[in-house]
Amino acid sequence: MTQRTRLTPAERRAQLLDLGVRLFARRDLGEITIELLAEHAGISRGLLYHYFGSLTGFQEAVAQRAADDLVARTAPPEGDDPVGRLLASLEAYVDYVDTHYEGYVSLLRVAKSGDARMRAIYDEARRAMGVRFAAEAPELVPDTPAALMLVNGWQALAEDVVLAWKADPVLTREELLRVLAATFPAVLTALA
Amino acid sequence: MTQRTRLTPAERRAQLLDLGVRLFARRDLGEITIELLAEHAGISRGLLYHYFGSLTGFQEAVAQRAADDLVARTAPPEGDDPVGRLLASLEAYVDYVDTHYEGYVSLLRVAKSGDARMRAIYDEARRAMGVRFAAEAPELVPDTPAALMLVNGWQALAEDVVLAWKADPVLTREELLRVLAATFPAVLTALA
Repeated sequence: MTQRTRLTPAERRAQLLDLGVRLFARRDLGEITIELLAEHAGISRGLLYHYFGSLTGFQEAVAQRAADDLVARTAPPEGDDPVGRLLASLEAYVDYVDTHYEGYVSLLRVAKSGDARMRAIYDEARRAMGVRFAAEAPELVPDTPAALMLVNGWQALAEDVVLAWKADPVLTREELLRVLAATFPAVLTALA
Repeated sequence: MTQRTRLTPAERRAQLLDLGVRLFARRDLGEITIELLAEHAGISRGLLYHYFGSLTGFQEAVAQRAADDLVARTAPPEGDDPVGRLLASLEAYVDYVDTHYEGYVSLLRVAKSGDARMRAIYDEARRAMGVRFAAEAPELVPDTPAALMLVNGWQALAEDVVLAWKADPVLTREELLRVLAATFPAVLTALA
């Protein structure tokens, strides 16, 4: 017999967000309604409003969770050489997009829409990943605003290429990783 | 005395689209309504619906005109060396974003929104520019799907960097052009 565990409000909220992210992976963010979540979680709409305040509050919390997840999953391993760290981080990114494709595309769409708060969630995640890439490879990335601007530009390239590859895999996964890893130092040399 | 010219329907439609694009440069596409256009053009709503069928029809036609304009303005000059052509095309692109900033950001936003037809208009313009870049520099871009994928990725980089530079010009315009021009061959070397 499974013991029914009583969750704290924080645990319950986290559980609902995890469900939101799973639903999000197969739907547009706009399709994730309080009703849909209530149906899947088997709890009342009232309780959901209690946790998230509004539908917008819930959608923002789901987008934030997805963005945090992306940043956490693409964290490079410690103690490796810069090229090895970059490759591991890229590999995690490619795998994330591969396994969370619909949700990721949906996150990008809302991120690039007119909604300022959604955009801020995505921009902050992207900035955090950029700062991390830059900090990991100080021998490649000088500590200047122009270098960080190029790192962000390279992230846009990687995002675009991985999405195109996912839609039409003209390279093997290994070739894709090798090419993307090679573009990073290549782009930075343009500053020299 | 100025002679009042009677326009053909095609000329009148083109004139209305030009007005739409000018309004679009200072507003979100969603703010460009038939009413606003009627007010600025001094003609009736009925005639506007006659030309464009619906508000969506009008917005799509404006987005298409803006996209065509971007492709046309970034056409490189003929008969130059590849580096010179790339630089001229980049210069035209940077100047386009500089002088049509709000409209361009608005085009990107609608392009990356959930609206499939708007996305198709933007994707087609971007693809046409990518094919042109690739065709102009055959010594840099092999005729393979992977190379075209990387060229498109480089376009995403250029778009991202120019928008970031517009918001925070950490380089001079000349430095920006030099850096972006250098990233193009650099990115393509990753295929080797």
